[in-house]
Amino acid sequence: MSVPEKLKKLRDQFDSADIDAIWIFNPDNRRYFSDFKAEDLTWGETSGSLLISRTNAVLLTDSRYETEAKEQANEYEISIYKEGVIAGLLSVMEKEHIRKLGFEENSISWRLYNKLFIGISEAAKSIELIPAESIAEKMRIVKNADEIYLIEKSANAISFIIDTIINELKSGLSEKDIARRISFLAEEAGAERLAFPSIVASGPNAALPHASPTNRLIMEGDPVIIDIGIKLEGYCSDITRTVFIGEPSAELKNIYNVVRKAQLAGIAAVLPDVESAYPDMIAREIIKNSGYGNYFGHGLGHGVGMAVHEAPRLASKQTAILKNGMVVTVEPGIYIPGLGGVRLEETVVIENNKPRVLTTSNAYYDF
Amino acid sequence: MSVPEKLKKLRDQFDSADIDAIWIFNPDNRRYFSDFKAEDLTWGETSGSLLISRTNAVLLTDSRYETEAKEQANEYEISIYKEGVIAGLLSVMEKEHIRKLGFEENSISWRLYNKLFIGISEAAKSIELIPAESIAEKMRIVKNADEIYLIEKSANAISFIIDTIINELKSGLSEKDIARRISFLAEEAGAERLAFPSIVASGPNAALPHASPTNRLIMEGDPVIIDIGIKLEGYCSDITRTVFIGEPSAELKNIYNVVRKAQLAGIAAVLPDVESAYPDMIAREIIKNSGYGNYFGHGLGHGVGMAVHEAPRLASKQTAILKNGMVVTVEPGIYIPGLGGVRLEETVVIENNKPRVLTTSNAYYDF
Repeated sequence: MSVPEKLKKLRDQFDSADIDAIWIFNPDNRRYFSDFKAEDLTWGETSGSLLISRTNAVLLTDSRYETEAKEQANEYEISIYKEGVIAGLLSVMEKEHIRKLGFEENSISWRLYNKLFIGISEAAKSIELIPAESIAEKMRIVKNADEIYLIEKSANAISFIIDTIINELKSGLSEKDIARRISFLAEEAGAERLAFPSIVASGPNAALPHASPTNRLIMEGDPVIIDIGIKLEGYCSDITRTVFIGEPSAELKNIYNVVRKAQLAGIAAVLPDVESAYPDMIAREIIKNSGYGNYFGHGLGHGVGMAVHEAPRLASKQTAILKNGMVVTVEPGIYIPGLGGVRLEETVVIENNKPRVLTTSNAYYDF
Repeated sequence: MSVPEKLKKLRDQFDSADIDAIWIFNPDNRRYFSDFKAEDLTWGETSGSLLISRTNAVLLTDSRYETEAKEQANEYEISIYKEGVIAGLLSVMEKEHIRKLGFEENSISWRLYNKLFIGISEAAKSIELIPAESIAEKMRIVKNADEIYLIEKSANAISFIIDTIINELKSGLSEKDIARRISFLAEEAGAERLAFPSIVASGPNAALPHASPTNRLIMEGDPVIIDIGIKLEGYCSDITRTVFIGEPSAELKNIYNVVRKAQLAGIAAVLPDVESAYPDMIAREIIKNSGYGNYFGHGLGHGVGMAVHEAPRLASKQTAILKNGMVVTVEPGIYIPGLGGVRLEETVVIENNKPRVLTTSNAYYDF
C-alpha cells in the first residue's frame, strides 16, 4: 500500500473517530504513514511527527532532519520547528483550522499532552484532544501483501542467521561471543538493526526468559536458548530455538517435547475469527497437563510488523479477533530455576484462513 | 554513590516535592536508583518500574525478569505482576498506604497516567498524582566521582574506536561498511551497545546533521562526518570528527577552521555558575561572525550520562545553571546543502571550576 493509499484509509476513519486531524508521534506509525525513516535518537526524543488533516499532510521536524525528511516523505509538506515539538504543532494547527485533534494516547507523554493542552488554552482556541491511536493500530495490525513479503524476507534472513549460529555452536564459546556473531551476521544480511537485544542464555541462564548475554562459557549438557530478531527494510522477524550441547538430561528432553507439542498446537490454533487468547489457551493447556503450568509465565506470542512487539497479543484475556493478514509469534517456553529452560518460537502469518510459518529454520530435535 | 545513598538523597527531596513516594518508570532512572539493568525490549514496553516510599523500595516487574531483578536489585523487594503495570502498582500502593505519589511526567504516557488515575478512583482512594521527574533528573545531572570515572572510561573507548576508524578510512569504502566496522569495534571494546545509531556521512551527505549511513562510496575530496557513541558499564560517551579524503576545497578548509574555533571557544565557556545557554551563545557568535550563522541549525550540546542525551542542554534560551560534576558535549557544526558539512564534538566534564575534555582523540587538522 502506498503512502497516499494509507492516508486515504486513515482519513476514511476520521468520521467514526470524530476527529478532523490526527497527530502521529509514534515512530513506527510515523514511518508507516510517511516513509520518513529517521529513527528517534534516544528515549524521550523525537525525530519528527505528522499532522494529517483531511486536506493536508505535514511532517514536523527540526533542522537536523530537514534534508532527509524532504527526500523521503514525498507526500508531506515539511515544517521545521525551532522552539520544540508543541510550538511547531500549534503553529501548523492554526493554519489548518483544526477543531478536533486525534492523538496517540500510548505514545504521548503526560507532559507533552499537557503542554499541548496548555498551549491550546493560551491561544484561546477551542480544540478538542481525542485519543485515537487505535485507528492507526487497526490499520497496521492487518498486513497487506507488500508487508507480508517484507516480513517473510526478514524471517528468511533471521532463519539463515540462527541456522548459521547453531552450526557454529560449541562448548567454550561465551554467550557474548555468540551475541556478537549474531550482530555481525545481521549486519551482513543488510539488517537496519537488531529488532531487540539478542538473547543467548545457556545452562541455568536459560531459566531467565529475557536474560542478557553474559561471559558464561557454554558447557557440555547445557541448554542454550537463542532468541533473535532483525529489522530489515522496515519489517521485523523473531525466532527462537533451544539447542543442547551434547546429550541433554531426560528431564530437559521431556520439557523440550512438551514445549514443541505446545508450539505446534499453538500454531495450528492461529486461525481467523478466533479470539487472540485462543492459541495461548491451547498451548498453555498442553504445558499445564504435563505438570509444567507454573513454569510458563509469559504470553504465547505477539504481533510482528514494523515493531517487533505490536498488536495482537496472544495471551489470556486478550479479546482481539484474529484475521487473515495478521502476523504473530508463537513462542511457548518452560523455565525451571536452577535447571534451565526451553523456548521455541516461529513467526506466523494467517493467510487463506490458515497459519503459515514464515521462519524457515529446521533446527528442531526429534527426541 | 551506592543505591542506598541514592535512595536516601531521593527521599530527602520528598518533603519539598510534597510527595510520600515516587514511581520511577524511566529506564535510565530505574537503573540509576536500583542497579536493575534489564533494558526495555522495544518502544512502549517496560521491563519494570520502581515504587520508592519513605520506608520501602519495591521493583515491580513481570515473570520474564524475575530472576534478573532478584540478582541485581538487591535493595528492593521484588513484586511480580501478572495483570500489567498499573494493576501491579495499585496493589503495592495499597500495601504502602501512599497518599501523594510522585510520577515522571516526561516518561509516562497519557494512557498509563489515565489508567492509574482511573484505577485510583475505582478503588475509591484519595491518592494525589504529582509530577516529580525533576527530582530524579536533578540528582542525575550532577555526576559523582564514580560516574565521572565510568564516563571517562567510555570516552576513552570511543576515542580509541574513532582513531582506529580514521586510520582505516579510504576512498572506496561505503558509509555502511564503516558503520559496521564501528559496531564491531564497539563490541570488541565491551560496550553494552551503541549509544545511538552511528552517523557516517560523506560528501553531500555530510550536510545532513543526522544522516543514516548509506551505500555511498567515499570519494577523493569528500568530507566525512563520523559521530559515534557507546554505552559502557551503564555510561555513555559521544564524539564527532570530520575527516577529509585527500585535499579538501578552500571553502571546506575555511568551514573546518570556523567550526574548530567555535568548538574551542564553546568548551572554554563550559564553566560553573553560567547559564547553559552561554557556551552555545559564545560558539554561535563565532560561526555567525564568519557568515555561516544560517548553517548551524542545532544546539551546541547536551548532557551525557546514563542517557546519551540528558540534562543540561546547551542551547539558546536554556536557563539551567552549569555546575561542577556536569558532563556535556560541545559539538558545533556547519552544514551546506549540496556541498557537505563539518561537525566536531567532544565530551566534557566540569571539574574544579573548569572544563576538562574526556574524549582523547587527536584527529584534528591544522589547516
